[in-house]
Parts: sequence; structure tokens; C-alpha cells
Amino acid sequence: MSEPIQAGVEKSNNVTVTDVFWQTYKRIVAEQVIPYQWKALNDALPDTVPSHAIENFRIAAGEAEGEFFGAVFQDSDVAKWLETVAYSLRSFPDAELEKTADDVIALLGRAQAEDGYLNTYYMLVEPDYRWSNLRDNHELYCAGHLIEAAVAYYQTTGKRAFLDVMEKNVQLIQQVFGNEDNKLQGYPGHPELELALLRLYDVTGKQEHLDLAVYFIEQRGQQPHYFDIEKEKRQTLNRPKTWNDEHTNFGLGYAYMQAHKPVREQEEAVGHVVRAMYLYTAMADLAQRTEDKQLQKICDKLWEDVTRRKLYITAGLGSAVNGEAFTNAYDLPNDSMYCETCASIGLVFWAKKMLELSPDRKYADVLERAIYNGTISGMDLDGKRFFYVNPLEVNMYQAGRKDQEHVKQERQKWYACACCPPNLARMIASIEDYAYTTTGDTLYTHLYMAGSVKANIGKVPVKLTQTHQYPWDGKITITVETEGVFNLAFRIPEWSREAAASVNDEAIYVNDLQNGYLVLNRAWKAGDQIELLFPMPVERVYSNPKAGMNQGQVALQRGPVVYCLEETDNGANLAGIRLPRQAAFQTIYDRDFLNGVVTLEAEALRITGTENLYQTDVPKTTPRTIRAIPYFAWGNRGLGEMRIWVHEGVE
Amino acid sequence: MSEPIQAGVEKSNNVTVTDVFWQTYKRIVAEQVIPYQWKALNDALPDTVPSHAIENFRIAAGEAEGEFFGAVFQDSDVAKWLETVAYSLRSFPDAELEKTADDVIALLGRAQAEDGYLNTYYMLVEPDYRWSNLRDNHELYCAGHLIEAAVAYYQTTGKRAFLDVMEKNVQLIQQVFGNEDNKLQGYPGHPELELALLRLYDVTGKQEHLDLAVYFIEQRGQQPHYFDIEKEKRQTLNRPKTWNDEHTNFGLGYAYMQAHKPVREQEEAVGHVVRAMYLYTAMADLAQRTEDKQLQKICDKLWEDVTRRKLYITAGLGSAVNGEAFTNAYDLPNDSMYCETCASIGLVFWAKKMLELSPDRKYADVLERAIYNGTISGMDLDGKRFFYVNPLEVNMYQAGRKDQEHVKQERQKWYACACCPPNLARMIASIEDYAYTTTGDTLYTHLYMAGSVKANIGKVPVKLTQTHQYPWDGKITITVETEGVFNLAFRIPEWSREAAASVNDEAIYVNDLQNGYLVLNRAWKAGDQIELLFPMPVERVYSNPKAGMNQGQVALQRGPVVYCLEETDNGANLAGIRLPRQAAFQTIYDRDFLNGVVTLEAEALRITGTENLYQTDVPKTTPRTIRAIPYFAWGNRGLGEMRIWVHEGVE
Repeated sequence: MSEPIQAGVEKSNNVTVTDVFWQTYKRIVAEQVIPYQWKALNDALPDTVPSHAIENFRIAAGEAEGEFFGAVFQDSDVAKWLETVAYSLRSFPDAELEKTADDVIALLGRAQAEDGYLNTYYMLVEPDYRWSNLRDNHELYCAGHLIEAAVAYYQTTGKRAFLDVMEKNVQLIQQVFGNEDNKLQGYPGHPELELALLRLYDVTGKQEHLDLAVYFIEQRGQQPHYFDIEKEKRQTLNRPKTWNDEHTNFGLGYAYMQAHKPVREQEEAVGHVVRAMYLYTAMADLAQRTEDKQLQKICDKLWEDVTRRKLYITAGLGSAVNGEAFTNAYDLPNDSMYCETCASIGLVFWAKKMLELSPDRKYADVLERAIYNGTISGMDLDGKRFFYVNPLEVNMYQAGRKDQEHVKQERQKWYACACCPPNLARMIASIEDYAYTTTGDTLYTHLYMAGSVKANIGKVPVKLTQTHQYPWDGKITITVETEGVFNLAFRIPEWSREAAASVNDEAIYVNDLQNGYLVLNRAWKAGDQIELLFPMPVERVYSNPKAGMNQGQVALQRGPVVYCLEETDNGANLAGIRLPRQAAFQTIYDRDFLNGVVTLEAEALRITGTENLYQTDVPKTTPRTIRAIPYFAWGNRGLGEMRIWVHEGVE
Repeated sequence: MSEPIQAGVEKSNNVTVTDVFWQTYKRIVAEQVIPYQWKALNDALPDTVPSHAIENFRIAAGEAEGEFFGAVFQDSDVAKWLETVAYSLRSFPDAELEKTADDVIALLGRAQAEDGYLNTYYMLVEPDYRWSNLRDNHELYCAGHLIEAAVAYYQTTGKRAFLDVMEKNVQLIQQVFGNEDNKLQGYPGHPELELALLRLYDVTGKQEHLDLAVYFIEQRGQQPHYFDIEKEKRQTLNRPKTWNDEHTNFGLGYAYMQAHKPVREQEEAVGHVVRAMYLYTAMADLAQRTEDKQLQKICDKLWEDVTRRKLYITAGLGSAVNGEAFTNAYDLPNDSMYCETCASIGLVFWAKKMLELSPDRKYADVLERAIYNGTISGMDLDGKRFFYVNPLEVNMYQAGRKDQEHVKQERQKWYACACCPPNLARMIASIEDYAYTTTGDTLYTHLYMAGSVKANIGKVPVKLTQTHQYPWDGKITITVETEGVFNLAFRIPEWSREAAASVNDEAIYVNDLQNGYLVLNRAWKAGDQIELLFPMPVERVYSNPKAGMNQGQVALQRGPVVYCLEETDNGANLAGIRLPRQAAFQTIYDRDFLNGVVTLEAEALRITGTENLYQTDVPKTTPRTIRAIPYFAWGNRGLGEMRIWVHEGVE
């Protein structure tokens, strides 16, 4: 069984980040987002929907009076905050913050019931109806997030308190759920606990934690269907209607929660995207741990379906607000889609597990696409406002449609359903965990992130250091800091069509790749220098002809960064711009613009406005210089149109 | 005050139709649709939702047992059927059908309450709550449709029975509604009664009928808002929730029913499209009758808003299923829109009234666009299946989306909400009523429809005959059958850029048009021949650049007919077709294809399929002959993709 370096407590300090791009984001999370979200959790933000999440735990602990407030999954906001803190403390030690986290953890412990139960919604609102609505009420989902946080906090600090709370909670879950006749044969409506149990197993090594994860994954979608049984039972309990009783599962059936069939029979990505991503992450993780080739094959089929037929160029996912869900292959509307920030974050989680399962650049290419585009677009450059939905196009006619209100034209301070901001925070705070994996004999570099990594290849300790200005420049210098014989594998990005490499100034042939990786085997000496060169011309990306909405248009991409046009740079009616195929681009790096980005400029055309809705005269055009900026940085300069896909010019 | 020839009983026989195109449709309505819909109204169709509409009247008349079934506006289906019969009898006398209609009318009379009330829903379901929910329950809307039918039936047959029933009903409405303190200051949630009362005034000449129409039109949207008052009152009545209580007015407020402000302050077309069309029709009709220039100006502003910013190229209207409503300017999605058949029919009604108000080809151009495209597309070529929603694009990725189920891929036999099929039937059965109008000195020919017209210009009786193969051929011969001095005005369609004309073989200068009409004044002799020539090259139509979804694409139009591509002729993935700008078209008339149409063929390109979702290589293409058919005839050859807007080729 392969043993990824991320397993075990040494995870907390094996990768350091000096990367300007990511260190900026990580610092924003540490200095802005964590304190901001702490205020949110404590209802200390003016002009936002109150969270009440900490207060719910206080009430559950008997330390405050009042009633539960918030969504049924309100506890998970606290969990994600604690998890973010855990990661952030690795890069930015902060005794005061750690003390605050310890206090919250202690509160969780005091709120926990004697039997290990811990969920403030049920404890305060429906104490007699625990586990009565797994389909809708996120009870096990919240447990999963708390487990993830507990594992992360233990890995960073070595403190066991949180882990103890959650192990006790898991013991209870284990007594309640399972295949045995005296247990409920249920599983979470919203996957999350599965991947969390696998992470718990990482640090506890307890077989029962692995077994419970296996149970929840395999039980999903089995017949007789648990959610049918549960529903029938619930009717005898006379419970009030839930959010999901009226228009159940948004008309999508159990596919909404990927419970329409057993997971080993699922070959197409369906339903609520975040649920799907969390489930597939757990499936891939399990396949890796158990060397389950059949499950791996399923994961790969799902991966192909998502990335070849249902993925936005930003690595956004989820074409419909209805069910926040996948729809059909090639259905990728740019202005009415969902593309929840959490969905792309979930894709990052999944991609990482696929890489651990089988190093192939196709996973890392998508991972990279996600982290530089559709995830971080969810936050403004100050870490103060967030998108839940990430449109690829904002136009004047879609704006203000009553049935399109899920698409916000600008980032919001906070959301009543606040899943995305803390999810993004935890991804950024732990971004270095996605850069490398190891197999028995090879250290894989998947992402180019300046900084260093320490790992063991077999028994050989290895340290590498990356230096570069990625993603704005494709010249990567890697210094081997330790001696020994081992393989170093470097991803040659699929977008890089003319990559070059050298070791100690000696050119290396780059065309002989292993699953997209340049694998170098030699007796390394400290100080050996590997240079990788990924030229970054501006690429015009064309969409498959089946994706009708993108036809006749190109997206601009440079390196891993997808670009967009904004009204503020290019005037209104971005759909009226024509980019002739032969137009050349100027690339300009400006350290002071949008936290430091490369912008693109080209001579294009603009169709001259007309009063007529339809005309038979060929539209007239006038020359116009256009400027494209990185998509992730859109919406930082006021309201206006935005567009990724630009029409090529016939004119 | 101008006196349109359509006023008065002579309306029934002033225009005869020999036109192949329209006579075919009229015959289908007479021979297929009327008997089919009669069966539907009597629940004699297998495999369709029962209508129960006739049975409801029987129960109300005390002649059958049972309960009301159907929508609150079920009565209107009977009304529209009777109105269709009335028109159809003009062209196709049928004693048996007339007898059936007489029987239905007698049944209505027996069902009517002593005080004149007539609405089967309220009589059978909520007898104590008449007029308690004008906002939602279509009580006055149904009255309007019955009045229209009664007027039409009287105009065709001279029989007063139906008119008497409805005059009695109007007397009651008049006692209940009005500005006086002892009356309700209400008005219909769904406009229709207003235009019907104006038609009633046509045949009765009673000032009170005109006054009541004025009241309903002017009271709309006044403050304090009647629907607020009514709602408050309804709460004291403890009525069950209606379809519109949950998500009231689809989030659109009173704009949903054009009651957000008084009609004289409305300058933008908003809300439910059919409601808007019926209201604007009444407003235009009123403005004409009362020579109200201010109201005319409002109507014209609304016309400009609709036709310059919110009109599909098919004359479809309604961009969103939410509220079946207008959205924003230039928001014209081709695959998720509503474009209800009834909406385009309503536009025909409105256009006609605008022409009566002020002859300008801009109204007739739109009227023509509607009758040859977005209205008749609602019916198959056999008159047996119907569309409610008329998409401009059917693609494989939109199909089957749970949130897009309003868009059917093929015409249906009948709808539970069966407004469109009978509405289309009455439009077709009376299509000749839209061809001509008169002013004091001029006979205007708006539509080219083979057949003849008799009219009085001032006191001079005039008869014209049109001969041609419109819309497939643009050579129009008009024979003047009567002598005298009068003006003949012929619309030069906006689409015709090289029109020519002659009188008795002597060429006439066509460039000096009056509001788009060629006006010929002379001492006419019987046998004078006017020839109009409208060359019909295939036109490529471009969309305003603000309509982003149509950019880089062209629609094909020949004469008044808009074309589309179907999968059956062009293979799957119509979005992958590229039509080079220089490609020439062949036009082929085939009498035996789709009831006889001109098809278009051109050498185009098709993008070669690829597995990749995104690629940086320029897409490869292969040559491909494409065939376009008239849009109205799509969907008559099985399921498949369809597309109006075709990508122009860069490749």
C-alpha cells in the first residue's frame, strides 16, 4: 500500500511556502478572514445575517439562555473555522488565536452529551428526534466537519482534546449505524463524514474508523432504500416539514445526493455538486487505502465525466441553481450557472485524492485550474467579501432577473448559508498540502509553489526548494537540498506545449513523460539545480462544439490563469467585442494592480451600437484596445459586466 | 373619429381568402382543430388530461351531477372554441356545427344565474365568494372571452342569444364594479375583459359598454391598490390559499399583471406577457376610439420597448418561465425562454389595433412576422399537436433538465392549461381580419393574402382582389374590381429592400412611401391591375450586439419567413455548424414537403468532433451542405435538435 507523505502528524510542517502569490492569500486568511469569520460566528459583524453558531454551543453547554438559531448545519461553520485556524497556525503561529481555538474546543467538549452526541440543532430543537432525518438535516455532515477540524488541530498542535471529543462522538455514531440488525442502516444525505473518518483513521490508525467509513460509503444507495424507510418512519413521528419535503430533492430523486444507486454502480456525475465532490473524494481515498482497483475505476469514470463534459474552464462546477447540481453533458451556461465556490474546492479535495491514488497530470492540471481560478474567485483581494456563486459572465440583461437572484453581481459580506467563505479559507490555509505526493520511490511535484518540501522517499529523507514567480512566469528553479538516489517527478502542465528542462544547466529531453510527469532519477547531490521552463504565451482556448454556448468564442489563458474582460476596462456590452484571430497580445506585469497580476492587451474590434434589434446589414465595427485581467480578480473594482468567452471576429 | 371597416356586422364577409397558405391552415382548423377541441371540451379524447369544461356548465345548469374540475379559467376554453366556430363558419358554413354551437350557447344561458352571473368555478366551488379574488382567479377574464365569442357569433350568424346572455352578464359586472362608493374598485388580474367590452361596444353601440372598458383600463394600478385591499379583505374571509399566494406574483410584484402603476404611467413592457398583450390591445383600441393622443403615445412607447428590445426574431415574447414574463431589454435566451404561443397571438391582436390607430408599416411588419413564425409554430401541420412554449433552439444539453421542463421537445396533444391551442385556432380562423384597414379616404393593405376585400372608402364601395403565392413568392397582383376615386395604400415590407411596383404595366416610383406604404391615388377603373414585386433573397439577419446570446450568429429569413436548422436534415450538434459569410443559398420550393414550403440549401462547414472539452488548437472543419426549413414547420418530423441562430464561420 502506498504511503503518502501527508499521512501522519509530520504533515503539519513538511511544506513551507515562500510563494508570493500564495503567501499573500495565506496572509489574508490569517490576518483578515480568520478574525472576520470569528466575529461572524460570534454575531459581532454589523449589517450581516447573524450566525449564532458559537452561541448555539453555549446554549447546548448550558452556559447561555436562548434558542437555537441558524441552519441545521450551523455547527459546521465553527468546524471549518477551527480547521482553518489549525492550518494557519502552521504558517503563522499565534498564541492568542490558539488560545481562542482551545477555548472553543473546550466549549464543544462541555456541549457534548454524555453519550458523545454533539449537534446543537438536534440538542436544542429536536432532542427526541436524533437521527430521524439523515436525508435532509446534515447531522452526520456536521460531525464530519468537526472530525476534519479535530484531526487538523491535532496534527498542527499535537493537542488531543478536540480529537478526544470527536472520537467519543464517532463511538456513538458507530453504535447507532451499521449493517447489524440492531443498528440503523443509514448514511448521510450530504456526504462529508466519510472523508472525515478516513482522515481520522490517518491519525488514530484504528481499524474501526476505517470500517465505519467503508460502511457509510458502501451502504449508500443500497436497496431497500434507507431514505424511503426513514421517510415512512418519520411520518409516524409527525415531524414538521423540512426544507426538502415540499419539492423533494429538487425533482432530481436520490441522484440529488448520489444515493440513486450503490456507489460502485455510479458512472456519471449527478446531483448536488458539493455532495458529489465530497463523496468522490472519500471514494478515491478509500480506493487508495484499500488498493481497490474496481473502486478506482469508478472514480476515474466519474472523473472523466466531470472533467470532459461538465467542467467550466474556471474549474467551476454545477450548471443549475436547481439542486445546485450537475445537469447534462456540455450544459455549461455562463450566466445562469451555479459554480459554487465550495464545488470547486471539493474538486481540489478530490483531485488530490486521485493524485494519491495514481499520479497522473490530468488530475493535477484540473487541481491547478481550480486553485488559480474558480476557487479563489470566491473571495475579494482583501478577504472581506465572498461569492457563493461564481458566474463566468455578467451581462446587463441577466442582472436583476427575479429567477436569477442566485447570481450576485458583487461579492457579499456574509451569507446565511455560510459554507463557502470558511471552506475557501481552509483550502487556502492548507494550500501547500496539494503541491506534492510521494510513492515508494518518487517525490512528485504537482504544483509550482515557491518554498520547500521535506519528505521521505522510502527511507531517504529528501528536501527540495522551488524558486520562481509562478503563475506569472514559467521559469522554475528547483534546488535539491539533500543527497541520495531517488526519483523526482515534475508535472509538465498540459497547457505547456513547449516545456524545456535542465539539470545543472544540462538540457533534459522533455518529451518522454510518464503520465505527464518528467521523472528524473539519479544520485542527487545537495545543490543540484533543476530548471523547468514553461513558456506562457497567451492561449486562445476553444470549446468543444457540443457546448453550444461557447461557440465562435475563445477564452484567454496564460499559464494556469484564465482571463476575463471587465466593463471597467473595456466599456459596456462585452458581447459586442470581436477579437480577430490574428490579434497579438501584450502581457504586462503590474505589481501594484490587483495585488500584482499580469494583464493582457490586444487590438480588437467593437461592434458599433445600433437601435435596431435585428438588421440585415453586416454590423459595423470600430477598433478598440481590449484589456483582460485574471478571472479570479474580477469584481474588485466596482459593479459591471464581466465575460470570459470572447467572440472571435468575422468582421 | 376614424371608423375602421371591421366595426359592425359586415365584418363577417368583407374579406374572402383564396390564399393557398392560409386557406390550408383555415381548413385544418375547420376540419381538424374544431372537432378535436370539441372532443377535448367534452372529455372524449383518450390519453389527455380531461377538460370537463362543458360538463362544468352542465353541472352549473343543474343538468348533471358532479363537481367542478379544471382551472379557474376553464370556461374560457369553451369561449375560445365558440369564437373559433364563429369565424370558421364565415369561410366554411356548416349547419351541424352551427347547431352544436347554438346548443352550447343555450346551455350557457341555462347555466347563467338569475342576476346574470356566469362563471362555473365560482358557481360550483365558491358560490359565496364571487369577486373575492380578482387578482388570481380569472373571473372577469372568462367573462371577457365569452363576450368576444358572443360578439363574433353575432357578427357571423346574426343570432342574438349569446349576445343577450353576455349583455346580461355585463350589466351585473357594471353594477358591481366602478368608481362609485357603493361598488368595488376592482379590475381583472388578467386583462381581457377590457378589449372584449370594446368589441361589445362595436356591436351594441351602448355608451355604458365603452364606459365600463374605460373604467377597467384607467382603474388599473391606481392607489390605494385594489389588490392590497382585496387581499386584506380576503384574509377575514379565511379562504384557502390560491396558486398565487405562496410565491406571490413570481416575485415580480404587481408588475406581473401590469398593475404596478396606472396604465398612463407605464412606459416599459413588464410582467406576464399574455396579460400585457391583452392590456395593450385594449389600450390601443381605446386610444383609437376616443382619439386619445396621450394614450396613443403610451401605446407607442410600449410598442417600441417590446419590438426594439424584447422581441424574438420569430415574434416570440417572454424570456422567462418565471411568471411567463418579460425580463430585461435584450434578454433573449433561445433555449430556456417562454415564448408562449398565446403571447405572439396577443401581439397580433395588439398590432392590429395599432394599425387601426395609425397605419404604419412598423406595426404590420411585426404582425406579419408573428403570423408566419411564432404563432403558427404552436401547431403541427396536421392540427393535432400543439406547443405552449416555442423554443428557438433545442439542444441536447438543455433537454431533460428538471428545471427546464416547460420547454417540450415535441408538440403535445393537449394541455391541462389549454389556452394556446384554441387561441391559435381563433387567430387562424379569423386571419383575414388582419389584412386590411381603412381610414376615411384610404384602403390599407397590410398583409398579402390571396383573396378579395370589399370595403367602403368614405361612401365609395371598393373591391380588390389579390393573386400570388405569398409567402413563397413576392410577385403580387392586385386587381381593382370597382370604380372610383380613392387611395389604395400597400405596405412595402421592411424586409423588402428592392421593391418594385406598376399600375397597368406602368412602373411606379416606390421610394416615396408614407409610413412604409405606397399610396396610390387615382380614378380607378374596374380591371386596373397593380403589380408589386418584393424580391425574396435569403437574408442573413444580425442581432443587436446587446443581445449577447446571438452574437457571431445569423438567422436566415426569406420574405417574412424565418428559417431554422433541424437535426434530421443536418445531423446532431447544430451549434457546430459554421456558415461562411460568402456561402450562397439555393431556394427550393417543394409542394409535397411540409405542406408546401421553400427550403434553403448552402455549402457550410461543420466542426469536427473532439473528445476534449477545451482545446487550444483551432477547431477543424469539414464541408457540409446544410438545409434550412421554415421555423413554423419544425418538429413535424420527429424529435431532434433545432436551431435558428447559426454561427458564421471564422474557419
